[in-house]
Amino acid sequence: MIRLGLIGFGHWGPNLARNFNTVDGCRLTAIADLSPKRRALARRLYPHARVVAGAAGLIRARDIDAVAVASPVSVHYSFARAVLMSGKHAWIEKPMTTGLAQARDLVKIAETRKRVLFVDHTMVYSSVVNRMRGLVAQGELGKVYYYDAVRINLGLFQHDVNVIWDLAPHDFSIMEHVLGVRVRGVSALSRDCVGSGVEDMAYLTLHCEGGLLAHFHLNWLSPVKIRRVIIGGSRKMLLWDEQNPDEKLRIYDKGVMVKAREEGLHRFHASYRIGGMHAPVLESAEPLATAVSCFLECIRKGTRPLTDGRAGARMVGLLEAADRSARRGGAVEDVAGLPG
Amino acid sequence: MIRLGLIGFGHWGPNLARNFNTVDGCRLTAIADLSPKRRALARRLYPHARVVAGAAGLIRARDIDAVAVASPVSVHYSFARAVLMSGKHAWIEKPMTTGLAQARDLVKIAETRKRVLFVDHTMVYSSVVNRMRGLVAQGELGKVYYYDAVRINLGLFQHDVNVIWDLAPHDFSIMEHVLGVRVRGVSALSRDCVGSGVEDMAYLTLHCEGGLLAHFHLNWLSPVKIRRVIIGGSRKMLLWDEQNPDEKLRIYDKGVMVKAREEGLHRFHASYRIGGMHAPVLESAEPLATAVSCFLECIRKGTRPLTDGRAGARMVGLLEAADRSARRGGAVEDVAGLPG
Amino acid sequence: MIRLGLIGFGHWGPNLARNFNTVDGCRLTAIADLSPKRRALARRLYPHARVVAGAAGLIRARDIDAVAVASPVSVHYSFARAVLMSGKHAWIEKPMTTGLAQARDLVKIAETRKRVLFVDHTMVYSSVVNRMRGLVAQGELGKVYYYDAVRINLGLFQHDVNVIWDLAPHDFSIMEHVLGVRVRGVSALSRDCVGSGVEDMAYLTLHCEGGLLAHFHLNWLSPVKIRRVIIGGSRKMLLWDEQNPDEKLRIYDKGVMVKAREEGLHRFHASYRIGGMHAPVLESAEPLATAVSCFLECIRKGTRPLTDGRAGARMVGLLEAADRSARRGGAVEDVAGLPG
Amino acid sequence: MIRLGLIGFGHWGPNLARNFNTVDGCRLTAIADLSPKRRALARRLYPHARVVAGAAGLIRARDIDAVAVASPVSVHYSFARAVLMSGKHAWIEKPMTTGLAQARDLVKIAETRKRVLFVDHTMVYSSVVNRMRGLVAQGELGKVYYYDAVRINLGLFQHDVNVIWDLAPHDFSIMEHVLGVRVRGVSALSRDCVGSGVEDMAYLTLHCEGGLLAHFHLNWLSPVKIRRVIIGGSRKMLLWDEQNPDEKLRIYDKGVMVKAREEGLHRFHASYRIGGMHAPVLESAEPLATAVSCFLECIRKGTRPLTDGRAGARMVGLLEAADRSARRGGAVEDVAGLPG
Repeated sequence: MIRLGLIGFGHWGPNLARNFNTVDGCRLTAIADLSPKRRALARRLYPHARVVAGAAGLIRARDIDAVAVASPVSVHYSFARAVLMSGKHAWIEKPMTTGLAQARDLVKIAETRKRVLFVDHTMVYSSVVNRMRGLVAQGELGKVYYYDAVRINLGLFQHDVNVIWDLAPHDFSIMEHVLGVRVRGVSALSRDCVGSGVEDMAYLTLHCEGGLLAHFHLNWLSPVKIRRVIIGGSRKMLLWDEQNPDEKLRIYDKGVMVKAREEGLHRFHASYRIGGMHAPVLESAEPLATAVSCFLECIRKGTRPLTDGRAGARMVGLLEAADRSARRGGAVEDVAGLPG
Repeated sequence: MIRLGLIGFGHWGPNLARNFNTVDGCRLTAIADLSPKRRALARRLYPHARVVAGAAGLIRARDIDAVAVASPVSVHYSFARAVLMSGKHAWIEKPMTTGLAQARDLVKIAETRKRVLFVDHTMVYSSVVNRMRGLVAQGELGKVYYYDAVRINLGLFQHDVNVIWDLAPHDFSIMEHVLGVRVRGVSALSRDCVGSGVEDMAYLTLHCEGGLLAHFHLNWLSPVKIRRVIIGGSRKMLLWDEQNPDEKLRIYDKGVMVKAREEGLHRFHASYRIGGMHAPVLESAEPLATAVSCFLECIRKGTRPLTDGRAGARMVGLLEAADRSARRGGAVEDVAGLPG
Repeated sequence: MIRLGLIGFGHWGPNLARNFNTVDGCRLTAIADLSPKRRALARRLYPHARVVAGAAGLIRARDIDAVAVASPVSVHYSFARAVLMSGKHAWIEKPMTTGLAQARDLVKIAETRKRVLFVDHTMVYSSVVNRMRGLVAQGELGKVYYYDAVRINLGLFQHDVNVIWDLAPHDFSIMEHVLGVRVRGVSALSRDCVGSGVEDMAYLTLHCEGGLLAHFHLNWLSPVKIRRVIIGGSRKMLLWDEQNPDEKLRIYDKGVMVKAREEGLHRFHASYRIGGMHAPVLESAEPLATAVSCFLECIRKGTRPLTDGRAGARMVGLLEAADRSARRGGAVEDVAGLPG
Repeated sequence: MIRLGLIGFGHWGPNLARNFNTVDGCRLTAIADLSPKRRALARRLYPHARVVAGAAGLIRARDIDAVAVASPVSVHYSFARAVLMSGKHAWIEKPMTTGLAQARDLVKIAETRKRVLFVDHTMVYSSVVNRMRGLVAQGELGKVYYYDAVRINLGLFQHDVNVIWDLAPHDFSIMEHVLGVRVRGVSALSRDCVGSGVEDMAYLTLHCEGGLLAHFHLNWLSPVKIRRVIIGGSRKMLLWDEQNPDEKLRIYDKGVMVKAREEGLHRFHASYRIGGMHAPVLESAEPLATAVSCFLECIRKGTRPLTDGRAGARMVGLLEAADRSARRGGAVEDVAGLPG
């Protein structure tokens, strides 16, 4: 039985608590939050757990094996560092830190101290994402032409990060996992439309290994919530619609091929293949529950998680590159040197 | 009764013929197409019209007042020039020509000869587009934050134009008409995924007067057809979904405002306004029928259409700028000097 | 070349005219309508056809081989009778007549005179309906449990028929064609909600051969248009949504089976099979065009159409039974003795 | 602080436990379930609550003020009776009992002993249902023409009730609450398609006060989940789609009116009013949380809940009438004498 502590019971923390309270093999032992109101809620929901204001005691506690950090991003580093230094395993919400140097530092500490450092890129553990990864890996799509993601809604404005740091970690981690390719260049355009001091909409263009083009539309100012990925391939095409309760994933037996090309002319003959659509049945496991199980297993077996510190550091590097590109008007930032 | 000739009975020509045959005040007199198969179809549908192979006779004919050019783009210029030089009014499909110089030449000829030169930017005449224009003009949306358009499907590959020249004219003409602003800078990224020799997908970022950001996703390789525009404003937001038969336009009473900002901190207080959604009833007139009526009225009254040669030339300039930007890896092209 | 006359250019007549003008092997020769306004429109669209007020001349004309009757239902019989008596083939809109006796009379005349008598149950000729019929016939659905149809919208109120006579012909003809079973008992409940003098909403329950239960919801007073059929089977289930542009037909690999049953108890063990969904690609031919082609072929070959006079008479009998049941508060009417 | 016990931790019990654990003013004190597996889950989720096999101790316990009965329907009566006899307040899941006599007995006991008897017709407490009720009460819809409900899915087969007893309580309670009218006659048709021993699909027709017609389609064998109510009125119409995350309730400004009627003819002039659609913003409170709050308030104040024992008994009477009608082939059962 792995005993878990949780720092931060704000927006995402309650989801962690709920899963720590239900996944087999662990126990929710303590919760820390600075807000008296949030502590009262935590006590109401989990009367068997210790609920405290400050994180320090929790980090030092003898009856806790691992600590999840779900505080604002700006304090991820200091909390996670203390957790690892105290010999505990660490779970950190995404994005891992506010800068690459801090992320690398945490990686180093975790490796030196042989502690599990898990970064919560949740969707990497979802069944639909892994189904897509399998389809791509097995060549079902043929040659992948593009990856287009739209992640927009009337946002929860994050107090200490912009829309890129809030939303892009989902799309970066999903895309690299599904396609099995790495981003090599990042171009971003963003705007602070409402004048809040942080960007609330952004378009990212990603230049990937093999010439593949990816594009993310991220927006906190959309009247409708859309979570949709389209992957175009030479043999088949995918549409993943997170909002569709019944048919999250659609596999289209559609394609285009250039059959012949008349000499001496700018013309060609494009042939369309218009087949049916298949929506497979998917496992309904909650991705976060699967992620928690993986974290526990890594602790028990001493293995490294799929979304380890290096993956988290790579993500921070990608986000920094997007910010840099946006400041330079969309110029492509080279990210070939990032970890992961 | 204005007597109309039609050059080109391929993809779009039949729509023109159908409307020329039904709109009051005109008569479909002659149709020209090089393909014997298309001529047979034209004869079948319009046994009362003259159907010929070559356009020359039709352009010279005494019993024709105006000629519509619906041939491949590469021959728009030569046909339209001959039409105007023969003293007839001209209707040209979009895009008007393959280059700005040719477009300017047609404008000059039409002005000198006092003939109507109409460019078929059809959607400018649709009731939903004009409803959106009205909402923006009356300040219903408040300050407009962004314009995001997605126009994707498993395309009809055009033989002589790329996806930008095929699809972007819709979005450029709609956006400038709806928002009442002009594009000042164009950035484009495009790909020839299938190797046909022309680009089949593109992302365009438009820098508009007043700092407004617009973005078009254009794609011939999507498994699903999406025709959707979102306009975010400080007071209300719009979603136009051309594919929705019942609720094409949705007006959301939603917004975000930054209420206060604590001194000395990077924080702010965002306040959301989440109201209901209203889908107004829209006139169901076919936009092309309205466009044809406008063309006829301009001929009768000697006035200039909303989508005249200058508008067409401006469009060609925008498309050229997009192509140039794409060749330069997305660098912003200045289009402040374009006509219109 | 079969020469066609058309009586009635009101609501449905223009669709017939359009197809008579495009389908190979026939020619639209004459159109009759009592309304000067409709005649003007007919002349505008088909300047090559003779357009007249009275149907008598058209029925007698030497240059016409077959006549389509698209007039109000109350005059179907007298027009169709005259058409057949003049030695011409007849196409009649649904419902064929206002009573079974008249329908039987037309069948007799057509058989005696060896003329084709075609009743326009259009949907029987659609590709989606025939795909469903094939799936049922091949046993893909296993045992068919039920057939549930919803056909509702904010109606065009028919002047001389109620909602049952207007809408149920679609569902009766589709259901019997798809399932290959005959209705044996009809129960109906209807209401004249708005006080127009004819019923504007109805629920029909159909008891079919083999015990299968079918149900139609017909409604002219719905704020939304729904055209949907669900067929539940032991192996698979179908959903046909006419309003869905992309995925009209969905085949669900879902079912329920009763696996075991404990003795002495009211309990059982239901086992669910929850598989994926497949939306096949369907031919996009217009059903009415296919129907016209079939009519022409029957004329040329002297064969009987699938939707011949007997099918039309059977339909009239089913509609009469529904009206009788509604008048008797929903009591089941036996229709085992109907033709077809 | 009201201390709550829960009998039954199967399908619906966990939802009660979750709300008993979060709603202000109560505490989840004990849970009883016969299944060791369910008890283990209960202990995992609520380590602070007493978890036992048998309900008897829980019913007698001194530290419990009220008990919720979420066991199979067949044992509702005996458990609820014991709860009330022990001087505790009772919450019973719907349907309240398997027969009207038992329900009436519970009502009598609760009234004699002055205990709160709450029947969980949850949806009566939802914001969307109360919004609809308000619109009807304020005359927004004008004269209500019909109420049409579809509640179908690939069901959870209930072991001891049929589809009518499982699903119809939702529609009966919602409809009578929204429209403010009582059902007077019930007609039902049902089938046991899969041979499980209980009916798995049914159509109910309800004859209401004022002549209004209502209809429920209930089905455990549908490949798709639909939860949809349409209410047609003379001024406006409503569509409630529980599955739509964004626009649960749509209010259509649409109607039909009969304007004039020519003398001596069977004709009339129907005039359509086709206005826009409005989707209001709705409170997002979980209906079950609201229901729990109401239960607690009734206990504290000694008042009677909206869904009290009489409402529960009325429901049992309606369900019995539906079963009787189904056994008699759909004959209308008079329910004018029911309580409530």
